[in-house]
Amino acid sequence: MTVETSSPPPSHEPLVMDRQALNHRLPAVVDELVRSVHAEPRMQHLNRVLLPSRDAAVQCIGMLQQLAFPGYFGKQGLTTENLPFRVGELVIELTDLLYDQVRCCVRYREKLPGTTERGRECDACDLEAARIVTTFLERIPEVRALLATDVQAAFDGDPAAQSTDETIFCYPGLFAIFVQRFAHEFYKMKVPLLPRIMTEYAHSRTGIDIHPGAKLGRSFFIDHGTGVVIGETTEIGDNVKVYQGVTIGALAPAFGQLLRGHKRHPTIEDDVVIYAGATILGGDTVIGRGALIGGNVFITSSVPPLNQVSAEPPKLKYRDRRPKGRVAEVLDFQI
Amino acid sequence: MTVETSSPPPSHEPLVMDRQALNHRLPAVVDELVRSVHAEPRMQHLNRVLLPSRDAAVQCIGMLQQLAFPGYFGKQGLTTENLPFRVGELVIELTDLLYDQVRCCVRYREKLPGTTERGRECDACDLEAARIVTTFLERIPEVRALLATDVQAAFDGDPAAQSTDETIFCYPGLFAIFVQRFAHEFYKMKVPLLPRIMTEYAHSRTGIDIHPGAKLGRSFFIDHGTGVVIGETTEIGDNVKVYQGVTIGALAPAFGQLLRGHKRHPTIEDDVVIYAGATILGGDTVIGRGALIGGNVFITSSVPPLNQVSAEPPKLKYRDRRPKGRVAEVLDFQI
Amino acid sequence: MTVETSSPPPSHEPLVMDRQALNHRLPAVVDELVRSVHAEPRMQHLNRVLLPSRDAAVQCIGMLQQLAFPGYFGKQGLTTENLPFRVGELVIELTDLLYDQVRCCVRYREKLPGTTERGRECDACDLEAARIVTTFLERIPEVRALLATDVQAAFDGDPAAQSTDETIFCYPGLFAIFVQRFAHEFYKMKVPLLPRIMTEYAHSRTGIDIHPGAKLGRSFFIDHGTGVVIGETTEIGDNVKVYQGVTIGALAPAFGQLLRGHKRHPTIEDDVVIYAGATILGGDTVIGRGALIGGNVFITSSVPPLNQVSAEPPKLKYRDRRPKGRVAEVLDFQI
Repeated sequence: MTVETSSPPPSHEPLVMDRQALNHRLPAVVDELVRSVHAEPRMQHLNRVLLPSRDAAVQCIGMLQQLAFPGYFGKQGLTTENLPFRVGELVIELTDLLYDQVRCCVRYREKLPGTTERGRECDACDLEAARIVTTFLERIPEVRALLATDVQAAFDGDPAAQSTDETIFCYPGLFAIFVQRFAHEFYKMKVPLLPRIMTEYAHSRTGIDIHPGAKLGRSFFIDHGTGVVIGETTEIGDNVKVYQGVTIGALAPAFGQLLRGHKRHPTIEDDVVIYAGATILGGDTVIGRGALIGGNVFITSSVPPLNQVSAEPPKLKYRDRRPKGRVAEVLDFQI
Repeated sequence: MTVETSSPPPSHEPLVMDRQALNHRLPAVVDELVRSVHAEPRMQHLNRVLLPSRDAAVQCIGMLQQLAFPGYFGKQGLTTENLPFRVGELVIELTDLLYDQVRCCVRYREKLPGTTERGRECDACDLEAARIVTTFLERIPEVRALLATDVQAAFDGDPAAQSTDETIFCYPGLFAIFVQRFAHEFYKMKVPLLPRIMTEYAHSRTGIDIHPGAKLGRSFFIDHGTGVVIGETTEIGDNVKVYQGVTIGALAPAFGQLLRGHKRHPTIEDDVVIYAGATILGGDTVIGRGALIGGNVFITSSVPPLNQVSAEPPKLKYRDRRPKGRVAEVLDFQI
Repeated sequence: MTVETSSPPPSHEPLVMDRQALNHRLPAVVDELVRSVHAEPRMQHLNRVLLPSRDAAVQCIGMLQQLAFPGYFGKQGLTTENLPFRVGELVIELTDLLYDQVRCCVRYREKLPGTTERGRECDACDLEAARIVTTFLERIPEVRALLATDVQAAFDGDPAAQSTDETIFCYPGLFAIFVQRFAHEFYKMKVPLLPRIMTEYAHSRTGIDIHPGAKLGRSFFIDHGTGVVIGETTEIGDNVKVYQGVTIGALAPAFGQLLRGHKRHPTIEDDVVIYAGATILGGDTVIGRGALIGGNVFITSSVPPLNQVSAEPPKLKYRDRRPKGRVAEVLDFQI
């Protein structure tokens, strides 16, 4: 067999591999990879419409944060005078970015046949994208008004908060709610992918996983937040407080995809408090107005209004560890 | 009504919206947003002193990491010879950044009347900022000495750790403790905002939420760490180990803001181990020296020294799932 | 005492510290820091071989993501025609980066005497690095094939998933598994540091902590994922589903470092489902094929195949909160 100098040598002795030999293997590595891409259609996106970009979504969230909380993020030194210019600048930038992203999503939703041409014709998609972005932009003031109630709720609810400024700056719960409220606007307009990319970015930063489909009331407060899960068809009333590690989820998805589209998650009415680690499951479960759900409570059925539910704490066993002549005794405690 | 060509047309037909029409709407969108900003004072920071910047705080943490663990992060190839130059360079950069940030915080604390001029006079603030930064810089060696005990504790405590290098490089618990120990220095000097921005950055990266106010002893080890919450007035002794999902928190903040400033979180004495998912609550709760707190234990009262506390595990129910003629049986298991 | 103008004045009055005086202190601060670095060998990496870089590891993960899921991340507009070029470009870039990183790791493993010269001779290390990188690159298609089963499992397992595209784009569980499967390849070849840096990056982004040593079967699905911990010597079969907050861990590491290298974590057989918050501990614990482990179950012994295990839920106490003349009653509920 003739081997050209530039092609990979038929080396089968891994131990004499050096950097040069590694380079010679690369063409074969590339061939194998290309073959592997064609072999597995679920793992590639070839010859198809452009997808939205996670980076662009993250950028949009940054601009929305500046618009929602002007003066806290982004450029410093905002005044009554320069505010309209800064807002104008941000709105124009955001519009460009969102229009591109939403157009990708709408074309994706329409299952357009594959193309990579940016200019590919789908006039209906473009009109739909323009309509969605306009509606979204016009909704920002209303979302801001909701967020103001969340800011106040975070300050009122946490004795460690020194100011509402601190809650805006630092509170991961507020960040997750901020992202979800905007993502929810896209969800309502049936934009695919983008809303979930947005909330998963918040999940990544905060450990708080609120599906963009969840309906959140006013003055919602999540403290600490790591591990919170709030499912797609959850409905949450006003003045609800949730602590870290709370799951508002579905019962076991025994029928998996069959449940898609049904109400699978609980309804939480106004003025409910859910303490850390509680789990509330099921689409028929309603936590009535003013109920208090204790830490680590596990609930799969409804709770009447104005009830407090606590788990009878497991009996604790105490044992003296003072060594009776044997130091090793300390070591036999298992978790 | 006369409408200029450049102003938004009074369009009320959302379905014929195209990109052009969207652009025409933007001036109205901006007006609405500006109105919304003025309507909600809790959600804007206009005409007021400059705020610290989250990005700058993150940069400071990066430099502190290089100073605390030289040779592990940042520039490679540190030697005995070039170390002083690299440290000098970092200290100067860090000082500039910190001075600006701390000055913002002090001016914020003094509730200076609004201004956006960077040069606005507050000589007392500037002196205070210089004093705080100097004290902070002079404290770095002592904080490093504490961190060295944490590095050793992480290696000793985890059989999966291959070297102390690995714990410095990879352990999220060490990162969270590193950030908190430095943030705590600012907290002690009553710098607002900055310490919390720092610990919330660590929280975001690690899922470990240690309030900058918490007092941590030597040789503190947090394993895995996701979901750990350690409250503001917590006191932790030496050689304490904490596993993932542990909360050292306050009892229900029934009186909310009224509790601000009081001791609301437990005291953990030396040599205590707290296993995964345990919850310890209350400002009067003291976990005595050498106690072991079992996984998922829920405690709201003190534990004497050298005791081990475990929750009587809930009885487990086992059920055979082997189908007796019906495959569907597999599906009726709910969580 | 004569003080030169450029040296720090012997100031002991912290209250008259200004920016100028702060600058004068800096040389002393630097001296103290350098002294502190020399005093604590566990906290510096001086005069030693180059270490791998976290930033470079993160870059590698980005490129692997583009190779594993072409068209979803990185450059848009992939087609059958341009795919080989894009793959080729990525493979070459990745090879350069990986070779450098792996070489650092191998030299580190060989405990080479200190040097900062990049060109320091260790021919055996360089050959070993080339061998490792070649093996790794040749394994990518097989890892992709495994990942394709994970993508399908995520879609099948979650009724909220709208498409496999969404699972690739958004699901933190898939991201964590993707990183672990590649890190595991380096772990198998005994590369130190790098694999753990990779999985801790995934941990940081997702709250899912899978040690690079864990053996994962096909079609592995982790839903939500925050708080999941999967230990080093865990073995997981095919078609396993795990929900948020699940720990597959070791019993109390009473003997700490003595356990290093032993099987300390459970074996999970095929078709097992583990619901949220369950804890499964111990190297002898085997969860038999087809078992269902209920939420919050705490298990330290084996479960036979086709069994379902659920914790008898703690009794819930309900109490009416309706005020009987006293509003304050609402306030005495403690967690």
